[in-house]
Amino acid sequence: MTKVLILGGGGMIGQKLAQKIIAENTYPDLELTLFDRAFPATSLGCEAITGDVTDQATLTGLAATRPDIIYQLASIVSGQAETEFDLGWAVNMMPMWHLLNALKDEHILSGNTYRPRFVFTSSIAVFGGPYPEKISDEFLSAPQTSYGAQKAACELMLTDFSRKGFVDGLSLRLPTICVRPGKANAAASSFFSGIIREPLNGVEAILPVPNSVRHWHASPRSAAGFLVHAASLDTELLQGRRALNLPGFSCTVEEQIEALRRVAGQGPVDLIKPVRDEAICKIVDGWPRNFEPTRAIDLGFKAESSFDEIIETYIADDLNS
Amino acid sequence: MTKVLILGGGGMIGQKLAQKIIAENTYPDLELTLFDRAFPATSLGCEAITGDVTDQATLTGLAATRPDIIYQLASIVSGQAETEFDLGWAVNMMPMWHLLNALKDEHILSGNTYRPRFVFTSSIAVFGGPYPEKISDEFLSAPQTSYGAQKAACELMLTDFSRKGFVDGLSLRLPTICVRPGKANAAASSFFSGIIREPLNGVEAILPVPNSVRHWHASPRSAAGFLVHAASLDTELLQGRRALNLPGFSCTVEEQIEALRRVAGQGPVDLIKPVRDEAICKIVDGWPRNFEPTRAIDLGFKAESSFDEIIETYIADDLNS
Repeated sequence: MTKVLILGGGGMIGQKLAQKIIAENTYPDLELTLFDRAFPATSLGCEAITGDVTDQATLTGLAATRPDIIYQLASIVSGQAETEFDLGWAVNMMPMWHLLNALKDEHILSGNTYRPRFVFTSSIAVFGGPYPEKISDEFLSAPQTSYGAQKAACELMLTDFSRKGFVDGLSLRLPTICVRPGKANAAASSFFSGIIREPLNGVEAILPVPNSVRHWHASPRSAAGFLVHAASLDTELLQGRRALNLPGFSCTVEEQIEALRRVAGQGPVDLIKPVRDEAICKIVDGWPRNFEPTRAIDLGFKAESSFDEIIETYIADDLNS
Repeated sequence: MTKVLILGGGGMIGQKLAQKIIAENTYPDLELTLFDRAFPATSLGCEAITGDVTDQATLTGLAATRPDIIYQLASIVSGQAETEFDLGWAVNMMPMWHLLNALKDEHILSGNTYRPRFVFTSSIAVFGGPYPEKISDEFLSAPQTSYGAQKAACELMLTDFSRKGFVDGLSLRLPTICVRPGKANAAASSFFSGIIREPLNGVEAILPVPNSVRHWHASPRSAAGFLVHAASLDTELLQGRRALNLPGFSCTVEEQIEALRRVAGQGPVDLIKPVRDEAICKIVDGWPRNFEPTRAIDLGFKAESSFDEIIETYIADDLNS
């Protein structure tokens, strides 16, 4: 039996991951548990526990079930972590600390035999400018948001608890996930999806930044693929550097729009309305634009190789569902 | 009046710092408080509070005195943090979290006017191999010890609390401090000082690593100088990157010994006995060897430019005291 626990299992990526694990029968004898504050109306047919990661006793209880694989995806988004400082650290960092300690206790209780695979969704927000043209695997983490600082602190803890053998963890620095299905969210990056998703649904979309803005993208399908791949990776190959810059596709907003025209024609493109938003311009200006994720590619992580493909993935997986 | 608080004020560097501030009359109307678990027998004539940084109420009380400048030097050494995992995180990280939160509370209580300068002694242990020949200011922090992970996590917190304006902090990644006066300690780096200090005191010293080992050094006098300089620095110049690789001098053990011969003659050199210790060799093999600390040099931080000078500093400041 393989026990898999997804913290943040009610979120967009958590749901994609659970769907993939179930649909592809990744684990022959699967016991899948999702944990989140809330879940979508449609059930995936696996256990779904409603709770809050800030409750330490809850985390201790989850650790006591000794999952073989733990995905830690639960967090508040960057915009909220920036406006609600205390909440950001309380949700995005402290639960990691308590959970790792609870898992260490289980490791010790088990006579050092229990050592779960622990996959943490970090973010390219661990980086801060000024940037080189392409961010290498050896570029410093100097976050300029609370969200990025919290993710980076979690990476450090996970690496150290892993080095000591209490868990076997890795941190995945996800690109911006695009095209996100559903509604726009509070993230400043929301428009990167919005300018594709809304037009494909016949709805007008606001573009708050210049066409020349370059960013780093991967699809929700790639994100789920990264997570499944990370769970089976030989972590010895990481040689102690357990935080990975993942592959993605770098393009400008103009290139996003060109891809939309190629894939769906001029009609959707006409629904994109440029309305500059200085606040969003300023935030986005501090973001990474391109990466050279050599290690992750060598380790077999795969993402899209064009923005056309990212749009096609959205159409295939999410447009009419 | 300038209120200065030194956490870890009973330790070697804390004492050097306090002595320097007092002797040089750095602040005209000084109110200096040292805090530590224990103090040397000789008092410096300033307030010395005995306590433990792991006691949260104590930290809240210290924050409530609203020091203008806070030096956070309190920590356990790398060797102890490695063998006593829980204690390492409890001493080397959690107090930073609680202290920063207590200072944030004071900031808010003061109507956002109280914003202390906060100088944190981080370490080159935030780095982990493989290394480039010289570590640049943009090289990633990928610690391979708990001590390094704890220091790096503190850096992230201090930077984020500073970015939000609650404190005005910077983290100094100190080189290995050499020549340490007094007795050998539990740090694996202890021999770098020992092979100079013991012979100068007519005592045999064990050299546990090959002559070819290269490392990164600065004197206790330089360390105190870094700390005083950091307290008066215009932090706007840091442009959000508040953790600094400091200047030092890179040399091999062989070059250390050659410098000892030049400064003190063959007699002391004959007291160095090579007795290889595989455990220490393995630890030291994971350490940085050389840096290119351009930012810190441009910001006016100064260290020795030869190992001869480092030895002469020890002789002048500590040999017969």
